[in-house]
Amino acid sequence: MSCKVVLAQGISASYREELKNTIKTRNIRPKLVGFLANEDPAAAKYAEWTAKTCAESGVEFELRKCSRNDLENKIVEANQDAGVHGIMVYYPVFGDRQDQYLQNVVDVSKDVEGLHHKYVYNMYHNIRFLDEAKTKKCIIPCTPLGLVKVMEYVGVYNGILPHGNRLHGRVVTIINRSEIVGRPLAALLANDGAKVYSVDINGIQEFHRGVGLKLMKHEVSETTLKVEDVLPLSDVVITGVPSPSYKVPSHLIRDGAVCINFSTFKNFDGDEIKKKAAIYVPAVGKVTVAMLERNLIRLYDYQAQDRASSTA
Amino acid sequence: MSCKVVLAQGISASYREELKNTIKTRNIRPKLVGFLANEDPAAAKYAEWTAKTCAESGVEFELRKCSRNDLENKIVEANQDAGVHGIMVYYPVFGDRQDQYLQNVVDVSKDVEGLHHKYVYNMYHNIRFLDEAKTKKCIIPCTPLGLVKVMEYVGVYNGILPHGNRLHGRVVTIINRSEIVGRPLAALLANDGAKVYSVDINGIQEFHRGVGLKLMKHEVSETTLKVEDVLPLSDVVITGVPSPSYKVPSHLIRDGAVCINFSTFKNFDGDEIKKKAAIYVPAVGKVTVAMLERNLIRLYDYQAQDRASSTA
Repeated sequence: MSCKVVLAQGISASYREELKNTIKTRNIRPKLVGFLANEDPAAAKYAEWTAKTCAESGVEFELRKCSRNDLENKIVEANQDAGVHGIMVYYPVFGDRQDQYLQNVVDVSKDVEGLHHKYVYNMYHNIRFLDEAKTKKCIIPCTPLGLVKVMEYVGVYNGILPHGNRLHGRVVTIINRSEIVGRPLAALLANDGAKVYSVDINGIQEFHRGVGLKLMKHEVSETTLKVEDVLPLSDVVITGVPSPSYKVPSHLIRDGAVCINFSTFKNFDGDEIKKKAAIYVPAVGKVTVAMLERNLIRLYDYQAQDRASSTA
Repeated sequence: MSCKVVLAQGISASYREELKNTIKTRNIRPKLVGFLANEDPAAAKYAEWTAKTCAESGVEFELRKCSRNDLENKIVEANQDAGVHGIMVYYPVFGDRQDQYLQNVVDVSKDVEGLHHKYVYNMYHNIRFLDEAKTKKCIIPCTPLGLVKVMEYVGVYNGILPHGNRLHGRVVTIINRSEIVGRPLAALLANDGAKVYSVDINGIQEFHRGVGLKLMKHEVSETTLKVEDVLPLSDVVITGVPSPSYKVPSHLIRDGAVCINFSTFKNFDGDEIKKKAAIYVPAVGKVTVAMLERNLIRLYDYQAQDRASSTA
């Protein structure tokens, strides 16, 4: 079989190496605080994994546990503490709109997850910098950013095209339209030039900047297409269905497609997909955590920049 | 417009630079002999151009003019002259099957154009080395090889896939099925994993190694498809129609396609194609000549290797 299976470990290695070197050679000690205010074992597991990865990289990680009703005050405290460079929260906390409120309580300058409205708005509107001088890149949510890095690594992004257009001509299907991953990812990829079919149980939307990328940012349109229409057209298929029973129908996948799964469950039938895909990425978790650290270093530098300009 | 226009000059530059450095640092003087046995002004022009390019690179180029009836003996002489490392003929000479006979008179070890039956056979059969120890790569005809290099340069070949499979998942239409360029190119690209639609006035053939690249070499099948069927499916469109009036119908080209012209005439309408293509390569001649020199250096080394092993 000619399919190349690419593991997240390998993809994240170069980012992790770069991070470690940056931290070591610059002799800095960026500090990340994670808030755990639920009893979700998956969240506890993710926290444990963050701690381990940070320790390896030289990032100081502190897990703060509290009740969900104390969480807002704790975040405000961390916002005000100059010794804390990045803040993350293990969601769900309330599991409803209050979580979205909390995402906006985290100070923009410390939001390693890129979930603050300012970042989300800028991402959807293809605004790539925080400042007019274009010295500070916006923070992109870790999982969508990780998936972009995966796609760069496996050669879907074409490096000869200018930044911002490197997916021109690519057709991508994303099976998941969550606010945390699927929808922002569709926007990111369409803003980079792809034609994206965004699939959820209610139907398929198309995200696209139009023929010849004539628009500066993507537009979203409803379609009457079905999964069986879009999969055979897609160069890239990305799945994130949170169910152990869901499998992408392999027979619909285009020969030589790039298939990427970000669900914790295996959304592709491994044996079948390897008979057709050119590249298969079964999981991306390690790349996500590397992006969390990458965002942290970025915020650390912005904070130093701000201090320097306020004392200048 | 988001189309990136890529010129042959830029693509050939790195190969030319490498060649020059090789010749200079190794202090070698490879000699290429070109035979001109016709009155074709295009051939004379090509000869002039070869001379100029060789002079710049440090290759010794000698143009030998003769009558077409003397040509065979002149080739045999050059075959036997250890001071000549590469031989090329400006075709057409007789303009019929006798030209194919002459291609096989050029010694395999000096055939810079890769037109000898041995090279042609190996190319169609996806046999990549001349020897069992795999120390000597086969010579590939210059224009098809140049087009492969163009496709590598513009990111159509995916470097993360193993050599020999780097076009898996790509759909390519080639409008030209000549024995000199179109048909060998279709074979080369299909052997590298692409699904190729080879178009000529008699119809469209498909060259492919099958789903999941299950075959070691491509197979050719006749189709009933038309240009209007295959262009909208094609990531890459390559044209070589020797007519000033022919234009590829731009409205059939897929948004974000890679469009490459190797005809001396402009087969694409430049204004229209730039509204849709992600990448447009209007000509490839300079890359072809770079490949001629590259093949020469390769043959120069094989000859040295052969002398070394015969005296050992």
